[in-house]
Amino acid sequence: MNETIRAEIISIGYELLTGMTVNTNAAYIGEKLTELGYEVCWISTVGDDDTEIMHALKQACDRACLVVLTGGLGPTHDDITKEVVSRFFESKIIFHPDVLAQIRKRFRMWGRTVSETNRQQAMVPEKAEILENTVGTAPGFLFEKESRLFFVLPGIPTEMREMMEISVIPRLLKRKKEIVLRSKLLPTTGISESELYDRVRDFLVHFPNVKLAFLPQATGVVMRLTVKAASAVQCDEMLEKGAAFLKKKAGRFIFGEGNTSLEKVVADLLFKNKCTVSVAESCTGGLVSHKLTNVPGSSHYFNRGIVAYSNQAKMDILGVPENVIRDFGAVSSESAVAMAEGVRRISRTDIGLSVTGIAGPSGGTPEKPVGLVFIGYSDKARSFSERHQFSQERLWNKKRSSAAALDLLRRVLLGYV
Amino acid sequence: MNETIRAEIISIGYELLTGMTVNTNAAYIGEKLTELGYEVCWISTVGDDDTEIMHALKQACDRACLVVLTGGLGPTHDDITKEVVSRFFESKIIFHPDVLAQIRKRFRMWGRTVSETNRQQAMVPEKAEILENTVGTAPGFLFEKESRLFFVLPGIPTEMREMMEISVIPRLLKRKKEIVLRSKLLPTTGISESELYDRVRDFLVHFPNVKLAFLPQATGVVMRLTVKAASAVQCDEMLEKGAAFLKKKAGRFIFGEGNTSLEKVVADLLFKNKCTVSVAESCTGGLVSHKLTNVPGSSHYFNRGIVAYSNQAKMDILGVPENVIRDFGAVSSESAVAMAEGVRRISRTDIGLSVTGIAGPSGGTPEKPVGLVFIGYSDKARSFSERHQFSQERLWNKKRSSAAALDLLRRVLLGYV
Repeated sequence: MNETIRAEIISIGYELLTGMTVNTNAAYIGEKLTELGYEVCWISTVGDDDTEIMHALKQACDRACLVVLTGGLGPTHDDITKEVVSRFFESKIIFHPDVLAQIRKRFRMWGRTVSETNRQQAMVPEKAEILENTVGTAPGFLFEKESRLFFVLPGIPTEMREMMEISVIPRLLKRKKEIVLRSKLLPTTGISESELYDRVRDFLVHFPNVKLAFLPQATGVVMRLTVKAASAVQCDEMLEKGAAFLKKKAGRFIFGEGNTSLEKVVADLLFKNKCTVSVAESCTGGLVSHKLTNVPGSSHYFNRGIVAYSNQAKMDILGVPENVIRDFGAVSSESAVAMAEGVRRISRTDIGLSVTGIAGPSGGTPEKPVGLVFIGYSDKARSFSERHQFSQERLWNKKRSSAAALDLLRRVLLGYV
Repeated sequence: MNETIRAEIISIGYELLTGMTVNTNAAYIGEKLTELGYEVCWISTVGDDDTEIMHALKQACDRACLVVLTGGLGPTHDDITKEVVSRFFESKIIFHPDVLAQIRKRFRMWGRTVSETNRQQAMVPEKAEILENTVGTAPGFLFEKESRLFFVLPGIPTEMREMMEISVIPRLLKRKKEIVLRSKLLPTTGISESELYDRVRDFLVHFPNVKLAFLPQATGVVMRLTVKAASAVQCDEMLEKGAAFLKKKAGRFIFGEGNTSLEKVVADLLFKNKCTVSVAESCTGGLVSHKLTNVPGSSHYFNRGIVAYSNQAKMDILGVPENVIRDFGAVSSESAVAMAEGVRRISRTDIGLSVTGIAGPSGGTPEKPVGLVFIGYSDKARSFSERHQFSQERLWNKKRSSAAALDLLRRVLLGYV
C-alpha cells in the first residue's frame, strides 16, 4: 500500500444502496484519478446516514492521500453530507454571500426565483475552500489536512463532472508524486476470456514486473497492464513492450488502446475510409444507431437508422421480399442480408449493416432459440451475414448483438473479413 | 444499526476501481436485497488484491448478518477471490468431481473442449456449500458462520443474476426476520428537485416516522419512503398513507410506483389503450426506440423507428418538406411536428413521436444552443411540439431528451396534455 498515490472514493446516497441508481460517478472519478497516476484502492458506498458517513470518512482519511466524496449536497432535508463532513473536520458552517450570488445568477438564467430551500446551499464549512458549481446550485468543498486532499462534490453527474474538470483535476495535476503508476488497456472483442488467456498466458513468464488483468465487459474482455516505477518513461517502456507481445498473440481481437469504445474505433475507421453507413435493426431496437451516434461528429458517416421491428416495416421501408420472410423467417441469414441491402439502397450509403434476432424472453423455438442473432452486411461488392448464439437475457442480448454488429464493421474496414 | 437485517455487498475487480466497468452488479444485488427486506448499508469495492479483499471481508462480517460478494472467480491468474475467501473462513480448497462434470457438460454444449485453465474452476472451498452456475463455468459458494450468511458469486452479470435467482433469493426467503423494513418508491419526471421538495415538504411534519428521500435520476427525481416496524402490515399501512399524501401534492409528476421505468409505464398505457406508436429521432440517435424495445412484448405497440440523422433522411423517409428545414432549421418546432407527422403517416400507427435537437458538444449557436431539444407529437386529431433546454453534455442530453419524449407520450395517454 503506497500512501503517496493511494486514492479512495466515497459515494453517498441511499439510491446507490438500493440499486435505484447505478454508481456511474465512482466509475468516472476512478477513471480520472487512474489517468492522473493515482491508485484507486477502495470505493465505499454508504447511505445518507450520519454514523455510516462518519465511519467511511475516518477509514478513507486513515489510508489514503486523496479522497473524493460525492453526494448528499442537495437542498432537501435528507442531504446531510455537508454537516457530517464539517463535523469530521471540526469546522463551523457559515453563510457565504458569494455563493448566494452565484445561486441567484444561475436561477435568473433559468427564469426561476431562489426559494428558502435553495438559500441553504449558501451555508458552507468555514475551513474548506469553496469549489464553484458552474452547472447547478450546490458548491463543492476542498479540505486539506497534513498534505492530504479531501474533495467533496455534488452527486448529480453533470455537476460532479464539471467540477472534476474545472476544480479537481487542475489541482491534482500540480502535485508531484514519488512513485509513478501507469497502466495500459487493450480492449478485445469476439473472443472468450479463457481462449484469450490461453493465447497470451506466456506473458506472465516474459513480463514478471507487469501486472496483467482480464476484465470482462459486454463488448469483450479488456486486458489491463499495470506497472509501478520511479519514472513515467520507465513505466511506458515496459508497457509498450508488454502491449507489443500481446498484440502479436491476439492482435486481431484487440480493437484499440485505452478507454476507447468499439463505436469510437469504428467511427474513426469510417471517417478515415470516407465511408458512410446506414443501419437496419430489429432485435437491437435502435441500440446500434444509439451507439454510433454517441460519438460526437457521427453525422459525418452515419446517415440513418431504421428500427424495423414489425415484418411490415421490414418489407415497407427496407424492401425485404415477402417470400424471404415467409420461407426463411425474419430471423435468418437471408432476412439479415436483405435488410442490409435494403437499408444501403434507400440510404445510398457505402455500407448497409443489419441485425435481426430473438432478444427474448419469449419468441424462441427449438430451431431458433432465444439469443439467436444474425448480423447482415452489404456494400457494393458483396453481401453476407454472420450467425451468433448469445444468452437468455433480453438486455444482454441487445448489448452483445450491437457489439457483434460494430465488430463486423470493424473487421470489414480492416480487411479481416 | 440493526444487525438482523443489515446487509453488505463486496464488489471485487480492478475494472471497477479504474472506471472501466460501472458497478451494475452491486445495484442489482442492492435492489434484490432491499426487496427482501434487508437494509443494505455498505458497498465496498476493492481490487483483486489479497490485503484489500481480506480487509473488506473482516469489516463486512463484523457488521452484517448477510454479505454478498461478487467477482474474481474467473479462470485466470488474477482471479484470487476463491483463495482469499477460503483463507478467511479457514477452509481447504479441494477438487470437486461434480463441478468438473458440470463444466464439461457446459463446454460440450458450446462445442468447445475443457482446457487446464477451466479445470481449475473445479477446485472449491471444502467448508462451503457449492452453488451451481447454470450459465457459465465458475461455481458460487455459500459460507455460514454464527447464523450469518456469506455468498460468493461470479462477477459476470448474467451468471451472477442467474445465481441470485436460483440460489440466493430462495435461501433468503426462507429466513425469518424480527424487524421489518419496507420501502416504497414514487418516481417522478418533469419537475426539478427543489420544486418537488417545496410542493411536498409538509410531509415531514405529517409523517415523522416515515423516512423520505429525494433521489435524482436522468429520468427525474425519485421519492423513496422507508418505514421500520414490527410487521409488514404495519409498514405497508404507513407507506400507503404517505404515498397518498405525496400523490395529492405532486400526482401528475409521479409516473408510477416501485422500480418501474418510464418506458414500462408508457408501454402499459399504449397496450391498455391499444395504441401503436412509431418514432422519428434525430439527436437521440435511436435511444427512444431502444428504450421502448427494452420492454418485453414491445412489438405489440412499437411498429418502427427512424433515426433520421441527416436532413436528406428527414426529407426522404419522413417527407419533411425541404422549405421547413430551410426556413426554420432541422432543430425547430416545425421540423419536430413534420417528423412526427411523417413517421406516423409512413408507419400507419396511431401516434407519431419525434425528437430533434442539438446534442453537442458542437453545433450550437446563440439562438439555438447545445441542449435545445424539440419533442414532436402527432395523432389523427392534432400535432404539436414541446421545447426543452437541457445541458452541455451529449449523453446526458440524449437521456434527458428520451425521457422527455416518453413523458410526453405518457401525459397524452393520461389526458393531461
